[in-house]
Amino acid sequence: MANLIVTGCAGFIGSTLVDRLLADGHQVTGVDNFSTGQRRFLEGALAHQNFKLVEIDLLDLDALKLAFAGGEAVFHLSANADVRFGTEHPRKDLEQNTIATYNVLEAMRKNGIKKIAFSSTGSVYGEAEVVPTPEDGPFPIQTSLYGASKAAGEGLIAAYCEGFGFQSWIFRFVSILGERYTHGHVFDFYQKLKADPSRLPVLGNGRQRKSYLYVQDCIDAILLAMEKATDKVNIFNLGVDGYCEVNDSIGWICEELGVKPQLEYSGGDRGWIGDNPFIFLETKKIQSLGWKPKFGIRDGVIKTVEYLRENEWVFEARD
Amino acid sequence: MANLIVTGCAGFIGSTLVDRLLADGHQVTGVDNFSTGQRRFLEGALAHQNFKLVEIDLLDLDALKLAFAGGEAVFHLSANADVRFGTEHPRKDLEQNTIATYNVLEAMRKNGIKKIAFSSTGSVYGEAEVVPTPEDGPFPIQTSLYGASKAAGEGLIAAYCEGFGFQSWIFRFVSILGERYTHGHVFDFYQKLKADPSRLPVLGNGRQRKSYLYVQDCIDAILLAMEKATDKVNIFNLGVDGYCEVNDSIGWICEELGVKPQLEYSGGDRGWIGDNPFIFLETKKIQSLGWKPKFGIRDGVIKTVEYLRENEWVFEARD
Repeated sequence: MANLIVTGCAGFIGSTLVDRLLADGHQVTGVDNFSTGQRRFLEGALAHQNFKLVEIDLLDLDALKLAFAGGEAVFHLSANADVRFGTEHPRKDLEQNTIATYNVLEAMRKNGIKKIAFSSTGSVYGEAEVVPTPEDGPFPIQTSLYGASKAAGEGLIAAYCEGFGFQSWIFRFVSILGERYTHGHVFDFYQKLKADPSRLPVLGNGRQRKSYLYVQDCIDAILLAMEKATDKVNIFNLGVDGYCEVNDSIGWICEELGVKPQLEYSGGDRGWIGDNPFIFLETKKIQSLGWKPKFGIRDGVIKTVEYLRENEWVFEARD
Repeated sequence: MANLIVTGCAGFIGSTLVDRLLADGHQVTGVDNFSTGQRRFLEGALAHQNFKLVEIDLLDLDALKLAFAGGEAVFHLSANADVRFGTEHPRKDLEQNTIATYNVLEAMRKNGIKKIAFSSTGSVYGEAEVVPTPEDGPFPIQTSLYGASKAAGEGLIAAYCEGFGFQSWIFRFVSILGERYTHGHVFDFYQKLKADPSRLPVLGNGRQRKSYLYVQDCIDAILLAMEKATDKVNIFNLGVDGYCEVNDSIGWICEELGVKPQLEYSGGDRGWIGDNPFIFLETKKIQSLGWKPKFGIRDGVIKTVEYLRENEWVFEARD
């Protein structure tokens, strides 16, 4: 039993990880400011004797240093996970992804904690020249504030590993799907179709190729990597071994919902500024540790639609 | 004649660039907080009618927005340029290199300025797997807070190019030498030899391989690249086509000073935590624009020693 800290513990992936860590017998301290996290995601955890919730903002370094007391490792999942609206508030990515990560590292240093797992993103590759994109592909040029802020977080973590003897596991995710999913294209499409099942506005031409991973597969990979990968800085792409078009995903969502909307494309090969028309990560490295996803993209989309249908409260909670 | 802004205008490279831009007939607004910049470096500029000095800190975003009014392009040279002592004050690199760069970008956006030149560093390559290291070598793992903070600055700049239609020229420097040089190994060795010419403590084993560039060659390259390179994000390594050992450099310094100290090595292949034992950047890309350095590493070292000998005030100014 270890004493583990999870930032963003009330988020989609964070709360799912908390439940898993508790089920595995660990003590968990969860940190969240509930800016986008949902208290309902922690209902199970809060009833568990091994869970402690600390409700603070990661930008409050003094509070963070206190919160981390006694921890043995940190899962730093808190983030502004919004890729699309970065240009509307550029400071948000800087603060919530870069400065917050710096604060997490400083709070770790203060408390002698040296192990950190970090939820990075395939967006750090910008528009990758090599697809499927390996972890050590060409030095990328950032194309989004989100990707840039996460790449900056990665860089800080790696520098702390070299400078302060930390060890890190950095995970570059594709988009994650599944229970407690609260933002992204399935969320947006579901919400629009519920309001008007006869038509569906689609950003771009629908031909954007994207990759997705089911949340429990994601957590399996994180825990396996932390158990088996022993480098100072361990970087892993996490995703399924394939991709789909936005149009495929729309088809699965509509089929599941039993609707046949008129698709209204905004046009162009990108959904928004900084949108990457082709995301597909090479996952040989994590697979070499013995991991492979149990669910495919279509499974993930359908599980997400099923979850949203049974939990429509999340739409109001996020409004 | 353009209206150009130079941050870090009182620094080694910044003040040299200011003099060049004024000589080329431009209007120059220089920004500096004189934390490490030297007022004496601006003596010529301050006497020039086309130069305006704004004495503010880049962390003061409101002041920066005012200072940038009317500018057409920004040369963002202000930085914490200290690689070696990063772990003693990790917040310094974050603030002075990453957050300051964010502020520069925001001040540009406020004033409709869309062109930025940025002094990055070969340290963003960490311990590069490929040497000589090209601009698009493998996605590096950061090994210093300095490199990480500069890589973060690069990422922010590139994201602003994509998100806000900026255009950038990012220069990854080797160490720069020449007149107004105020920190780094020649500075340190000179200072130590002056105090005691009989012995010289050397960090590491002296076999570290490093590359250097003379400051006027550096400025030639920056101005040529901005004239000729037309991509949205233009990234160039700047350095000479070779490297020397620390021992070579010590030999040239001692020869120039006429001293024969006992060399006392601290040992190991690195001078300090995060020191990169082999820095050598591939410079084919900038050379393809027609640039090549007029001076070699030895020339740069000797010019620097000559400068320091004639300007020993800089040692007191930096103490």
